[in-house]
Amino acid sequence: MSTFPITSKTEITRLPKRGVYDKEAIYAILDEALVCTIAFTVDSQPFQIPTGFCRIGNKLYIHGSVGSFYMRELQQKKLPVCISATLLDGMVLARSAFHHSVNYRSVVLFSEPELISDKHELYTALEVFTNKMCPGRWNDVRKPTEGEWKATMVLGFDIREASAKVRTGSPKDDEEDYDLDIWAGVQPLKLERKIAIADPALKAGVPLPAYLV
Amino acid sequence: MSTFPITSKTEITRLPKRGVYDKEAIYAILDEALVCTIAFTVDSQPFQIPTGFCRIGNKLYIHGSVGSFYMRELQQKKLPVCISATLLDGMVLARSAFHHSVNYRSVVLFSEPELISDKHELYTALEVFTNKMCPGRWNDVRKPTEGEWKATMVLGFDIREASAKVRTGSPKDDEEDYDLDIWAGVQPLKLERKIAIADPALKAGVPLPAYLV
Repeated sequence: MSTFPITSKTEITRLPKRGVYDKEAIYAILDEALVCTIAFTVDSQPFQIPTGFCRIGNKLYIHGSVGSFYMRELQQKKLPVCISATLLDGMVLARSAFHHSVNYRSVVLFSEPELISDKHELYTALEVFTNKMCPGRWNDVRKPTEGEWKATMVLGFDIREASAKVRTGSPKDDEEDYDLDIWAGVQPLKLERKIAIADPALKAGVPLPAYLV
Repeated sequence: MSTFPITSKTEITRLPKRGVYDKEAIYAILDEALVCTIAFTVDSQPFQIPTGFCRIGNKLYIHGSVGSFYMRELQQKKLPVCISATLLDGMVLARSAFHHSVNYRSVVLFSEPELISDKHELYTALEVFTNKMCPGRWNDVRKPTEGEWKATMVLGFDIREASAKVRTGSPKDDEEDYDLDIWAGVQPLKLERKIAIADPALKAGVPLPAYLV
């Protein structure tokens, strides 16, 4: 099945034409977004945590220290979570203030935490995460020791319900405003990776890897 | 008073040296971030919504259609919210996988929604919001009509509790790893505004405004 079912939690009711339920489209947004926010509730008080993450199949993974209070809370209490990730693609500059908008791709999904203890799944999650944050990096680095693995907690979130909301394209103005002498269009936004800066303590002679050039 | 009090909800317990409670530092992050996520709870189920926002004084503002289900819910039920915004500044590439990190500045705050009905406050919020999304834009555009104002809902969130978490600088590796032949450093990340693209329906002869050049 290639789409997530539309549920009361994931249905896009405001501007429904922007709603996307296609799994591959939702996965692509999650794979491009470098950060997500994880919302959970403790005693009817909402909290949220921004964190890096990766996706493998229908599951999101986050990791942190075994000393992380919120990760332990999530895991021990199996708290239901809402996770979102947003990509900003452009400022939509209409002729009227009212029709200004943003081109974006966002995902909101619902799940519950699962403590990952399978060694293969743990290793794969950290490898995919590292290569998402910096493509090509994993093969290059000193791999985790037994002690480092023990200090690391990985949580998985099977995507139970999800939808995306996407806006693309030019501004849409009221018919009578198209004749105004006001510039209109889109200012694209892009999160760019810049030239890498060596650690001042870098060992002499170690070259910049090809994947960072 | 120039700092937010440290509360049980805002204390940074994991890596406390990254915790920031200074108001100006928190405001600066909020002013740079173009999107936030608003988390709220309905019947112990957490939800979150990504949205544009602006800050004036100690208050965050969001706006949307009076037809927006979630904005009406927030407002009518005065639901407590947790709001976060995150800026990504760089990938921190350590010699060990374990010490990889991200340079970032994030804010998490707690508040409750307030329906803004004062005309001056409404107008100022939309002006500041528009100029945040595109500096210089407000003076240029066709201002809202009475009908457009009636169709727009603005919610304010007085910042009751807030903290930021900030990481900057080079990777920190284990002492014995500094001698490895592994490149280490920071790959900066930057959300960039690109050359604006005119609406295909742009009226002939309307020049690109100076603030977009």
